[in-house]
Amino acid sequence: MTFQKTNLDHKNPSIINHNQENHNKINLNRENLGLINLNPLQRGGIIPLETRAILNQWLDGYSVCDFCRGCLDKIQRPPIETFVHKTLPKFLGCDEVRITNGAREGKFMIMHTICEKGDWILIDVNAHYSTFVAAERAGLNIEKTPKTSAPEHKINETDFASKIKEMETAGRKPKLALLTYPDGNYGNLPDAKKVAEICRNAEVPLIINGAYAVGRMPINLKEIGADFIVGSGHKSMAASGPIGVVGATKKWAEQVFAKSKNYPLKGVEELGCTSRGHSIISLMASFPYVIKRVANWDKEVENARYFSDEITKIRGIKAIGEQPHNHDLMAFETLVFYEISTTHKRRGFFLYDELKARGITGIKPGLTKNFKLSTFGLTRKEIDKIIGAFKEIAKIK
Amino acid sequence: MTFQKTNLDHKNPSIINHNQENHNKINLNRENLGLINLNPLQRGGIIPLETRAILNQWLDGYSVCDFCRGCLDKIQRPPIETFVHKTLPKFLGCDEVRITNGAREGKFMIMHTICEKGDWILIDVNAHYSTFVAAERAGLNIEKTPKTSAPEHKINETDFASKIKEMETAGRKPKLALLTYPDGNYGNLPDAKKVAEICRNAEVPLIINGAYAVGRMPINLKEIGADFIVGSGHKSMAASGPIGVVGATKKWAEQVFAKSKNYPLKGVEELGCTSRGHSIISLMASFPYVIKRVANWDKEVENARYFSDEITKIRGIKAIGEQPHNHDLMAFETLVFYEISTTHKRRGFFLYDELKARGITGIKPGLTKNFKLSTFGLTRKEIDKIIGAFKEIAKIK
Repeated sequence: MTFQKTNLDHKNPSIINHNQENHNKINLNRENLGLINLNPLQRGGIIPLETRAILNQWLDGYSVCDFCRGCLDKIQRPPIETFVHKTLPKFLGCDEVRITNGAREGKFMIMHTICEKGDWILIDVNAHYSTFVAAERAGLNIEKTPKTSAPEHKINETDFASKIKEMETAGRKPKLALLTYPDGNYGNLPDAKKVAEICRNAEVPLIINGAYAVGRMPINLKEIGADFIVGSGHKSMAASGPIGVVGATKKWAEQVFAKSKNYPLKGVEELGCTSRGHSIISLMASFPYVIKRVANWDKEVENARYFSDEITKIRGIKAIGEQPHNHDLMAFETLVFYEISTTHKRRGFFLYDELKARGITGIKPGLTKNFKLSTFGLTRKEIDKIIGAFKEIAKIK
Repeated sequence: MTFQKTNLDHKNPSIINHNQENHNKINLNRENLGLINLNPLQRGGIIPLETRAILNQWLDGYSVCDFCRGCLDKIQRPPIETFVHKTLPKFLGCDEVRITNGAREGKFMIMHTICEKGDWILIDVNAHYSTFVAAERAGLNIEKTPKTSAPEHKINETDFASKIKEMETAGRKPKLALLTYPDGNYGNLPDAKKVAEICRNAEVPLIINGAYAVGRMPINLKEIGADFIVGSGHKSMAASGPIGVVGATKKWAEQVFAKSKNYPLKGVEELGCTSRGHSIISLMASFPYVIKRVANWDKEVENARYFSDEITKIRGIKAIGEQPHNHDLMAFETLVFYEISTTHKRRGFFLYDELKARGITGIKPGLTKNFKLSTFGLTRKEIDKIIGAFKEIAKIK
């Protein structure tokens, strides 16, 4: 047969062969499988065995759309509707929850609906880079609350009050405030309730960025008294991602989760639907596991403090961030490793190599002077193994 | 030990137990596994066996970030950098490509950078709903090119010229135009080159929405002569998703893919990084398979035409959309099934039930009067089985 219409050259073997040849050579095996991973970004996103067991059925693109009626969070088979409209609101203490492609997408969604280009917002200086980039994308001006000096780097809650007042006086009253709870550099947990009270009194809506909280530790928007909360599935809810959650109080839900004028099933800020398929199934399948680990949070903090206490016994290692520490994400100043690196033939990379030789990964290759890590979900035995490894490596001449 | 700081009630057993109880009961098995799926949305996102084999290593959240240096498309292990900056630009015929969370996110990204709120854009009336919602999210006004009457529903390329002229006269010159290639209702393929020429002459940048083209059929932005192309990993590139690609010519790349002022590694419109982990690995792992099937596109069109020819031999079934058809996505008017539904005890659901009983799914439950389907990737034997099923069902009294 011949085509009656060929707008384009439907076969271009030069392009196809060239690409295929290059691409077939690539190695997609994951190098560091099976090691203990200390990367805070990754520890909360490890998929439990019970979730792995079901994911195989949902790998295809748009797999959850088998019985879709036009809206991701209205799908009943699998029971996404109940999960998004009942389970998650209770879990997060929100009136309404929606699925996003990640915490950053949730932050942008809120900024983009609540603010106009050129508006001012107030953000704690420890905020994640994606908070600043989301504000930049929305065309907003940013004021930051300061932090205390090293080694604590703490956010003073009352700075939210003074900054708001200062901004008001300058005719730049913030349209929105955001608190990072905890931050991703030091794992500091400011008093979110206090910040929420300050913002409420000043009538400034407050976002809680809980990317390192939701799915790791108990957190409840209503108890905090803020207006919005965002969480990350791939960062802290044992989900494959990209996926996140955004929760709001009744007051804001209608505006932020508004439906399209012409497509009454489609959320405007969600562009209709967000994280379909395998990602949302991983979030749902891991949820009972997440509930259990959240209930075990006291133990996680205890483990983190034990690790910090032991590791700081090594001469030349100091804990950074608030002490005693309240989160599994911890930062350390490690001059002992930096000193070794100055004479080691592998320079800064010796630490990565030495840890890897001991079955440990997750400290960025090259770093020695200071780094962050997380003990989330590790057993006491694994933690002891890591402490032992650092102690051994500190003795290298 | 006791906590020195407890801002929040860290244990709230009532909430936790309630959620857990409800959630543990849910069934996450996929009902329609193993059936032949005719849903056009899903046929191009089926994950091949060779990709399944590797995905197990990458299920964890942020899995590809093991060796990240601050930017998703700069990751070298796994070789994402080469894939995004060499393989994909060649495949799509673009100067620059970035990863998105889906085609719709790519469209919004372009609209949000090229246009200001209140600007006008021109879109073919057959555009996907997410194009209209993306424009709504960006605060844009929309003009639509018309289509021909039923049953063809074709976009006339020259209407882009007349509409642009009309809009210019009214002081509403479009800042951007978009052509859906093919559209998702009828699978019509307008002459994209012709539309691109019209837009170029009028100095209106043109987006090709290739969500149903990229990964299914050969398509090349430079050959078309447009400015942008978006594709969907989960829809047509055998990827799990959510994931998409956006490509641009040199002229626009700097603006649309601009980096943050304060974070030189982070794309503003990408909010730093987009689809990490398992999703991008599925896109990369499936790529050699996608290359092969794109080279087989003539056969796919031949299969679609064969199916259409056979099915329209049934009294009361008519093909909708351009004929002969040039894409695997096809729409049919099926009055024969509607007639049966009026007296059948299962009403409109009889068709879904009867197909399922024959191992076939993907026609929305309840539909009988008209529906769309796709034969993409099906063998001739499977296609014959589907034709046979429809013929049998058409005889039900």
